[in-house]
Amino acid sequence: MGKKHYRTVWADKACKTVALIDQNKLPFSFKVKKCKSVEESARAIELMTVRGAGAIGATAGFAMAQAFATAPKRNPWKFVEKARKRIKRTRPTAVDLFHATDRVYYAAKKSSNPVKSAAREAHAFADENAEAGRLIGLHGEKLIKNGFKVQTHCNAGWLAFVDWGSALAPIYAAKRKGKKLFVFADETRPRGQGARLTAWELANEKIPHAIIPDNAGAFFQSKGDVDLVIVGADRIVANGDFANKIGTLQVALCAKEFNVPFYVAAPTSTIDLKTKSGKGIKIEQRSE
Amino acid sequence: MGKKHYRTVWADKACKTVALIDQNKLPFSFKVKKCKSVEESARAIELMTVRGAGAIGATAGFAMAQAFATAPKRNPWKFVEKARKRIKRTRPTAVDLFHATDRVYYAAKKSSNPVKSAAREAHAFADENAEAGRLIGLHGEKLIKNGFKVQTHCNAGWLAFVDWGSALAPIYAAKRKGKKLFVFADETRPRGQGARLTAWELANEKIPHAIIPDNAGAFFQSKGDVDLVIVGADRIVANGDFANKIGTLQVALCAKEFNVPFYVAAPTSTIDLKTKSGKGIKIEQRSE
Repeated sequence: MGKKHYRTVWADKACKTVALIDQNKLPFSFKVKKCKSVEESARAIELMTVRGAGAIGATAGFAMAQAFATAPKRNPWKFVEKARKRIKRTRPTAVDLFHATDRVYYAAKKSSNPVKSAAREAHAFADENAEAGRLIGLHGEKLIKNGFKVQTHCNAGWLAFVDWGSALAPIYAAKRKGKKLFVFADETRPRGQGARLTAWELANEKIPHAIIPDNAGAFFQSKGDVDLVIVGADRIVANGDFANKIGTLQVALCAKEFNVPFYVAAPTSTIDLKTKSGKGIKIEQRSE
Repeated sequence: MGKKHYRTVWADKACKTVALIDQNKLPFSFKVKKCKSVEESARAIELMTVRGAGAIGATAGFAMAQAFATAPKRNPWKFVEKARKRIKRTRPTAVDLFHATDRVYYAAKKSSNPVKSAAREAHAFADENAEAGRLIGLHGEKLIKNGFKVQTHCNAGWLAFVDWGSALAPIYAAKRKGKKLFVFADETRPRGQGARLTAWELANEKIPHAIIPDNAGAFFQSKGDVDLVIVGADRIVANGDFANKIGTLQVALCAKEFNVPFYVAAPTSTIDLKTKSGKGIKIEQRSE
């Protein structure tokens, strides 16, 4: 179970079915959700069955291809256009979702075989996302010295991507290189992605870790217990501002106060050069 | 129910029984725990049936008087000395506990009627604590302008004291003066004193409020949504350093970044001039 056998999200070659690990059920049970329609795939994003910038992007790409694969013969483009809007309406903050949807859509639009091109593009997006995670690990691993204690917020591991992850990829790479390390996983209220997902991934990888309350980072940082902070990002904009899960700002401010190096790990698909500064990022506020 | 009818902790005149609101059961049920022995009173502090600097202090004072009231006729001082050690072993951080225990102990020690003097001193400690809360409200209320949004961390309301509270006392006083205000109550993981206790107090006082995750303060502060932060303290030492619930440091750092006024409200019994700086404060770490 875990990363050896599964990606976080995948699809059959034709993208008729989109499959994903049900992250709302983790860590208590490991279930795969199979989405047989665009609506089911869109709902999976909306209900956070799948979450994390890259995993959302890949799901959106597959869902867009699924629209082409399952469109009625009569008036297929009407179905496809409607699906495109539906997919984009699911979550507002993660730019990967828009990237992936449009990439698949336009690849199909300019192709003589839209169904096949859409599916190929969706698979390409997912493969590139997995590869980006592997490369983030390869490069980021150099930041982690033997014996380091690393703090992270939310879940930016392989569950947040198609594979490997962003913030956790360097940690997995360091572990595979034989480095000793320890991870402080912020609990990440209110949904507990750190406590539920990051801790589950780390346990599967046999990496020593502690779940800490979201209010405790400054305490450990002030004692010199944190050597490095790595977080992911939902969107990075032109001036270098980035958006990530609620609480990331506090972790960054504390790291600044206590001179703890703070890194954002993300693939290029997370970069949004059209938006000038953080003020232009729509931040999702879910229902109270 | 609530502050009109109860103090947080009280005792009969002779201090044979110590009664307290069971805060582990709040907000789901309102129960009063009656402690018939020093051991029961000590356990109530240890198990956080009663918590909060002032309420712990008053309970410790009553428990010390209870030791005199319930000591065996033969060798009463042996029993009392043992009780004194037991009470001091319950919680390490809140200085009120040590103040109250010793104040009752020494009042009895130099008296010709130790049992009566101990009880009188314990009641005096509790009354002074309640009065301190009222006065904190009277003075602190001036900080709160009409329409202010106030952030607080943990619970430093009347449940944390014998009555009124420290951080919340100015809020209650402002409300009684007819000022409109809104309170952001940090959830305060891992035990949720903000979500469970502060929100319960505020609801009883009909003060509009929101429970926010411990990681969200910086977000609201950065948007200009917080006009003032008021927190309590477990101990304030000679150089002005203070200890309070985990997470207070982060709130303070964020308030500094976003220029939000940050106040600590506490009675003089929380001041410990014998300790020079924050480094000398023993911070309690409860079991994982």
